[in-house]
Amino acid sequence: MGAEAISGLRRDASADGRPGRRSTRRIELTDLFADRHIGTDSAAQKLMLGALGYPSVDALVDAAIPAGIRLPADAPTTLPPAASEVEALAELRALANRNRVTRPMIGLGYYGTHTPAVIQRNVLENPSWYTAYTPYQPEISQGRLEALINFQTMVTDLTGLATANASMLDEGTAVVEGMLLARRASGSSSNVFLVDADALPRTKELLRHRAEAVGIVLHETAYDMSPPPADLEAFGAFIQYPGASGRLWNPAEVIAAVKAQGGITVVAADLLALALIASPGELGADVAVGTTQRFGVPLGFGGPHAGYLAVRAGLERQMPGRLVGVSQDADGYPAYRLSLQTREQHIRREKATSNICTAQVLLAVMASMYAVYHGPRGIRGIAHRTNRMANLLADALKDAGVDPAHELFFDTVRLSTPGRAADIVAAASAEGVLLWQVDADTVQFSTDETTTEADALVVLRAVLGDAAPAELGFKPISRSIDPDHMRQTEYLTHPVFTTHHSETGMMRYLKYLADKDYALDRGMIPLGSCTMKLNAATEMAAVTWPEFANLHPFAPEADTAGYLELIGQLSGWLADVTGYDEVSLQPNAGSQGELAGLLAIRGYHRANGDTHRTVCLIPSSAHGTNAASAVLAGMRVVVVACDELGNVDLDDLRAKVAEHAAELAALMVTYPSTHGVYEHEIRAVTDAVHAAGGQVYVDGANLNALLGYARFGDFGGDVSHLNLHKTFCIPHGGGGPGVGPVAAKAHLAPYLPSGSANPVSSAPYGSPSILPISWAYVRMMGAEGLRRATGSAVLAANYIAVRLREHYPVLYSGDNGLVAHECILDLRPLRDATGVTVDDVAKRLIDYGFHAPTMSFPVAGTLMVEPTESEDLAELDRFIEAMIAIKAEADAVGAGRWPKDDNPLVGAPHTAESVIAGEWTHAYTREEAVYPVRTLVHGGKYWPPVRRIDQAYGDRNLVCACPPVEAFA
Amino acid sequence: MGAEAISGLRRDASADGRPGRRSTRRIELTDLFADRHIGTDSAAQKLMLGALGYPSVDALVDAAIPAGIRLPADAPTTLPPAASEVEALAELRALANRNRVTRPMIGLGYYGTHTPAVIQRNVLENPSWYTAYTPYQPEISQGRLEALINFQTMVTDLTGLATANASMLDEGTAVVEGMLLARRASGSSSNVFLVDADALPRTKELLRHRAEAVGIVLHETAYDMSPPPADLEAFGAFIQYPGASGRLWNPAEVIAAVKAQGGITVVAADLLALALIASPGELGADVAVGTTQRFGVPLGFGGPHAGYLAVRAGLERQMPGRLVGVSQDADGYPAYRLSLQTREQHIRREKATSNICTAQVLLAVMASMYAVYHGPRGIRGIAHRTNRMANLLADALKDAGVDPAHELFFDTVRLSTPGRAADIVAAASAEGVLLWQVDADTVQFSTDETTTEADALVVLRAVLGDAAPAELGFKPISRSIDPDHMRQTEYLTHPVFTTHHSETGMMRYLKYLADKDYALDRGMIPLGSCTMKLNAATEMAAVTWPEFANLHPFAPEADTAGYLELIGQLSGWLADVTGYDEVSLQPNAGSQGELAGLLAIRGYHRANGDTHRTVCLIPSSAHGTNAASAVLAGMRVVVVACDELGNVDLDDLRAKVAEHAAELAALMVTYPSTHGVYEHEIRAVTDAVHAAGGQVYVDGANLNALLGYARFGDFGGDVSHLNLHKTFCIPHGGGGPGVGPVAAKAHLAPYLPSGSANPVSSAPYGSPSILPISWAYVRMMGAEGLRRATGSAVLAANYIAVRLREHYPVLYSGDNGLVAHECILDLRPLRDATGVTVDDVAKRLIDYGFHAPTMSFPVAGTLMVEPTESEDLAELDRFIEAMIAIKAEADAVGAGRWPKDDNPLVGAPHTAESVIAGEWTHAYTREEAVYPVRTLVHGGKYWPPVRRIDQAYGDRNLVCACPPVEAFA
Repeated sequence: MGAEAISGLRRDASADGRPGRRSTRRIELTDLFADRHIGTDSAAQKLMLGALGYPSVDALVDAAIPAGIRLPADAPTTLPPAASEVEALAELRALANRNRVTRPMIGLGYYGTHTPAVIQRNVLENPSWYTAYTPYQPEISQGRLEALINFQTMVTDLTGLATANASMLDEGTAVVEGMLLARRASGSSSNVFLVDADALPRTKELLRHRAEAVGIVLHETAYDMSPPPADLEAFGAFIQYPGASGRLWNPAEVIAAVKAQGGITVVAADLLALALIASPGELGADVAVGTTQRFGVPLGFGGPHAGYLAVRAGLERQMPGRLVGVSQDADGYPAYRLSLQTREQHIRREKATSNICTAQVLLAVMASMYAVYHGPRGIRGIAHRTNRMANLLADALKDAGVDPAHELFFDTVRLSTPGRAADIVAAASAEGVLLWQVDADTVQFSTDETTTEADALVVLRAVLGDAAPAELGFKPISRSIDPDHMRQTEYLTHPVFTTHHSETGMMRYLKYLADKDYALDRGMIPLGSCTMKLNAATEMAAVTWPEFANLHPFAPEADTAGYLELIGQLSGWLADVTGYDEVSLQPNAGSQGELAGLLAIRGYHRANGDTHRTVCLIPSSAHGTNAASAVLAGMRVVVVACDELGNVDLDDLRAKVAEHAAELAALMVTYPSTHGVYEHEIRAVTDAVHAAGGQVYVDGANLNALLGYARFGDFGGDVSHLNLHKTFCIPHGGGGPGVGPVAAKAHLAPYLPSGSANPVSSAPYGSPSILPISWAYVRMMGAEGLRRATGSAVLAANYIAVRLREHYPVLYSGDNGLVAHECILDLRPLRDATGVTVDDVAKRLIDYGFHAPTMSFPVAGTLMVEPTESEDLAELDRFIEAMIAIKAEADAVGAGRWPKDDNPLVGAPHTAESVIAGEWTHAYTREEAVYPVRTLVHGGKYWPPVRRIDQAYGDRNLVCACPPVEAFA
Repeated sequence: MGAEAISGLRRDASADGRPGRRSTRRIELTDLFADRHIGTDSAAQKLMLGALGYPSVDALVDAAIPAGIRLPADAPTTLPPAASEVEALAELRALANRNRVTRPMIGLGYYGTHTPAVIQRNVLENPSWYTAYTPYQPEISQGRLEALINFQTMVTDLTGLATANASMLDEGTAVVEGMLLARRASGSSSNVFLVDADALPRTKELLRHRAEAVGIVLHETAYDMSPPPADLEAFGAFIQYPGASGRLWNPAEVIAAVKAQGGITVVAADLLALALIASPGELGADVAVGTTQRFGVPLGFGGPHAGYLAVRAGLERQMPGRLVGVSQDADGYPAYRLSLQTREQHIRREKATSNICTAQVLLAVMASMYAVYHGPRGIRGIAHRTNRMANLLADALKDAGVDPAHELFFDTVRLSTPGRAADIVAAASAEGVLLWQVDADTVQFSTDETTTEADALVVLRAVLGDAAPAELGFKPISRSIDPDHMRQTEYLTHPVFTTHHSETGMMRYLKYLADKDYALDRGMIPLGSCTMKLNAATEMAAVTWPEFANLHPFAPEADTAGYLELIGQLSGWLADVTGYDEVSLQPNAGSQGELAGLLAIRGYHRANGDTHRTVCLIPSSAHGTNAASAVLAGMRVVVVACDELGNVDLDDLRAKVAEHAAELAALMVTYPSTHGVYEHEIRAVTDAVHAAGGQVYVDGANLNALLGYARFGDFGGDVSHLNLHKTFCIPHGGGGPGVGPVAAKAHLAPYLPSGSANPVSSAPYGSPSILPISWAYVRMMGAEGLRRATGSAVLAANYIAVRLREHYPVLYSGDNGLVAHECILDLRPLRDATGVTVDDVAKRLIDYGFHAPTMSFPVAGTLMVEPTESEDLAELDRFIEAMIAIKAEADAVGAGRWPKDDNPLVGAPHTAESVIAGEWTHAYTREEAVYPVRTLVHGGKYWPPVRRIDQAYGDRNLVCACPPVEAFA
């Protein structure tokens, strides 16, 4: 018998010398998650490095990232060594087990709901839905756009208003957006906004924080207790409907009074209640907002879920967020796309009226499918049963001498229980039911779709003790909705809401829609700065575990210990890798993280007495959301020029700093820049701002180019927001959910969102149920894996740049001619030479089986390509070869082989029907149209369902609800 | 305030008077699962009944099912009232919680394994994979056929043999099939088969039970202890490799000795061990069999998982089961299909040599994808680590003075621990690790991919007590594999095994394959008697819960209480609905259930001294598997004629009974018949058999036409097998898994499989991890829901029959001209009139977006259509209209509009490429080829990846492994 050491089983991955990273395993696992996450293996990387002339990834990154900001190789880290997928799941399971799953009857905007299993499996757990990108390329997004049109139709139907968007981040921020809309849409010069005294507490907190920043004065009023004010002196009014206390009243008179005086009413309406009671539209309201959580979206300890916002006719063009509309394709066939995109912040910049961009598409899809699956009869039945259950409880309590505070209600019953509130809540909790303690003398509870008779009996026992009945009984019950207040109008009348009611039918509808779309499960989505990397199945696994899915955001701390520990760990890790002291995970989108960061700067300056510091410097290359957020944080935007290399123009920066020194609040800068390069002078930039007393805001959109190699906090950042759906693997979901943690140095920490302080989201922890995704990613990668991912992403981008450079100029590069994790291909010379536009190339890529890179951002006429670390070399090469082939096609147009108005580029994308039906009269062949490369035949071909969509037509003819079936005939 | 009763919320569903079915709910749920499962709602059913002229479903079924066998409306039931989806999941969760998840190191053919998350999510939890049918229509099954070719390649590579099938039911039954193969392939006239004394105990039990029935004499021998016998007098020999005791030895000499004497060797080889040790092929073996469970398929308390069987060159045509091969399509492009289908039992009937049909496709796909994902290096690493872990343990035990029984081993170590075995097992179990107690003095354990150092330390503590080391240590360890015995040959060398190693790549490969296939998520699969109904997401949910997925089949009873209760409940429910006394869930396929039932009849007769009762009467219309199973149960098949109506010819039956009265063992009959009708005289049939002392075997294939309306046990059945993947919603999985419970009257109960008595599967409970699916179905439907499902299925079949009757004759019908749950459309008149064949129509249906019905079974030249209850009226109508349109196309051929050799029917199916590339020279247009109806444009079209496949070419040129990449150029 021979003998040999077992060290051969150990992996290189732990060979790195940084403390805390050394593996302690005796027998290494055979499978390292980083090797699965990173698409290129060492052999592929060697080939790619050869093309670039570097001996190693580290050498490449060393040449790309300025030495002055690089993290020392021996920097300490608090991240634990990488866990295997199985180990990470076991740890998540242990955390999950520390959460207590109860039956929450807390209400306050969050309700139990049954996610139909067919929707959970085929949407929430299906990469075809969750890995899709925002539908900026509508031709390959028709499936989710149809789902969103269904969502908008559902909201307009139920609210009785003309137009709804898709979608908002949550109810509280939707109310804020409603307030801002009211200010700009009302003719009033007032800066006063009336707020319902019976609004949700959290909504009031959000309104206060956000109104203050933009100079709106809030005036709280108990509408239902007093007659409408004769003289408003307000630009608008907010009404909670039904009230937070459960009270159901008819606000028609208040609305009429506000309208009569030129004000705009914003009504936060419970969508399920609207199945039974008069809608905001019927009552004359201008704007309705709210949440769609209880339409099948798990509580998730607060999120994510989709908010909604709908407006009466005439206010469409005032809406924030994204609006899906109907247009037509090149063949005149109805086709969906985002309408009125000029409203988007990247176009409007500091003139933007909202900073909402990515919202909650995946959750909006789920809510819309809930309505599709249940239909009007089902939704009405659920509303009816919810109301009945509250009614049965109220009657039983009344019978026992405990009178509800309000005679009329939908699902929420408030009880006066002097001195006993805490005991009652504790008694119910001991039996697994959560009530809400309003104050020492008051409790309330809300029923929902999931409330059972057993739950109701727990409530009765908690309140009545031994006097509680043993069963609810079948006797007649009182009315809790005034017959005059019942809804008179129909809803969900479009056939889509009455067609897919069998599970088989629903499963097929979901597949039919998914098949129309291009998501990461088909091929790469090289979206510049959007970092469409792998969303690993293990990362996604815990999201739907009941222990993470079914917790109420206001559940007692003892019930949420696992969540709180996970949040604490993830916050700590994010602080570690960015070089900051404190992280808040509350912002539920990058835009909200950005706003939270700017509000923190604002809070800091004001606390120092520097109320005059309101100028925010923003480079001309910045993402438009930066400017929009600055405005919403009450700042004034001053633009700093960029030089011809795409870098911040240091001279102009110094001049602007000098000019605004006394009023300088902040500089916002993205690093690496939105031009995809590591600016060499970043320290000089941050130093200049600090010298003038300003704060430095580093936008974390491009963190994927830095992680493990440099930290924002080390080179001058005071505060940053990150995007967990960019760098940290939360799937894009077709345009959300997102999480936008805000991270800051200690001096700004007091001004970050935390609990009810400085709120930017309805839920205290934003969207916790998707945090296990990022937690698992960091846990399975470890510090070394994150660093390897960065290096691999930078390598992939530079490989594309070097291979495409001779065909398309690479617009910007940094030290040693290298780009960061993305590169901008300049298509303007091609356009000048051939007439082929960036649009033509983007649409032609669809024919080749690709999602187009980012178009015309940050520079018009360019494509920004970010391959990420997750693509393998075969896919990178397939993309490169497609781009080269398209260049050759464009050259053929330029050379006159094909007419400028009839070639495969202007004709792109080609549907199957367009090359099959009828006579073929084009200058190019059918095969040239759809099979430009041989690999597309025999199974690999993605067929777009529509041809190129006419954007202008849709904006001229705004239709934002489901078209009649005949339109497709 | 008005008042109203809440009774309006209650559902009709509980309005039925049968005891035990009345709902006890106070407030009904708004959502009834039966309404989701059944595709047609009451409005649709009203329309359909109108077309048939019946006032209600009950009236229709009353007219169809002979009154004499109908269940009284007030028959009692033990089924609980229907639970909601949420309630059923909660009950399953409670059952799951009663199972203890441990780390099993029991071995004996079942090992811990990590299912890669990307495979779990995208195969096991993806309806595109699990709802697919057996690939009898290969043009629309290329994805799973490719996966199965990968499986076969994996097995041939690892075993070193020429050809592998896809796949077997488990290792034990594969050994039995190997024995039967050896008997027919060897030239020997001996009926002796040598059995390895160190074989798995369960394998020995199976061999004993099965050999006895077919007259094979087993001779057990300790090969490794004694020299090979000089005179075999045996037709073959079975070798367990490595041995059940863990011993690793080189059987080359034994194999050579067997071969020299004309015998066939069957080697059960551990596939993972083969990554390190010499393969059966290298050692000269003829046949290798085994399990692929440890290639990523969860333990599942014993199943399901795929067995394998591979043979040396020259034995291909002797193989049982299904064999995927490469052929070419009408354009000469490589295409996969099932090879040598004439071997299938429905063709060979009583001449069949095996009754294996549906095997374990979904699990074979998973195992193959495990190999694709890990590749040769990964598989070798896992094998290496598994062996190292066993080695480390053996050395630590040796150091402490406990010597392993064998010096050489792969993963299993046997220890002599006199008198202490039970204590050691208990001590390990207390720490959550399961060992195997061989006898009072002996324990053994097996390492696997999942074994951690912590697990190993538990083993050491259990065996060594205080003398156990605190850690395994890093010191050099002994060799446990003889260097001369190490594998010398490569494996998994095809590029498919080295291409998809990133998770992104793997996810896309799985989607790429799924996109080629047609499954229930695209549209209906109207397979006669295969009952392709909804597999609801809620039903599927529990399968992947660790508490069901990770239990070892030989775990102690106390750890499996939840499983045992679930099995008990489901068995009871199945007995209730079929009218039997006892049910065994052990058979892991319908064919095995059938065999178990026949073996029970055989056992009963023998116990009564009726050893001469060996004749099995089988109607000519029976499924071929009936006859094959009868032969394997040691019976002689006598065929009974059918009359022109498709019913059993009573006169012929009586004559055959009279002729064989003394030797009559049984009649096998399917009810309703394979002709899709309720035979009126079924009681006369069963009475005649009983009168002659025979037993009645009722094949349960068509139970979906009877459930709730009649019971086999009530009209003369003594024993039946059911198909849980037909009537009870286990998904077809592309050709398995299945569960084939065998149900019998009390007098046969002692002869049913139970524990180690009368075994027909390797695992005591067969495939338990998929039983939660059927459990959930019954639990959520309740007796009333099952009855409604039956009525809806019968209604759908009759609706299709009545609407298509004027276009295609309906071949058979029963009372009142009604069919049961399926109908046979006679296409022979069409062929005679137009030359269009049943094949042409079936392939043309693909162009229309359908999976073809069953072709030419039970009658050549016909299509058998079974719509099931899950299809909605829109889909039924879409199918009917497609069939009518195809009839019109055929008529056009008949009328000479299109030539007989160039029309859309003979050209079908059409790939996208075939209508796009090159000149179009056909007599019909491109649009006529692929868009025969308008609904197929704009997103709804399924594109087959290949054109019609040449079956004969593939059989002439048998290729059953992955073709080289160049073949597709």
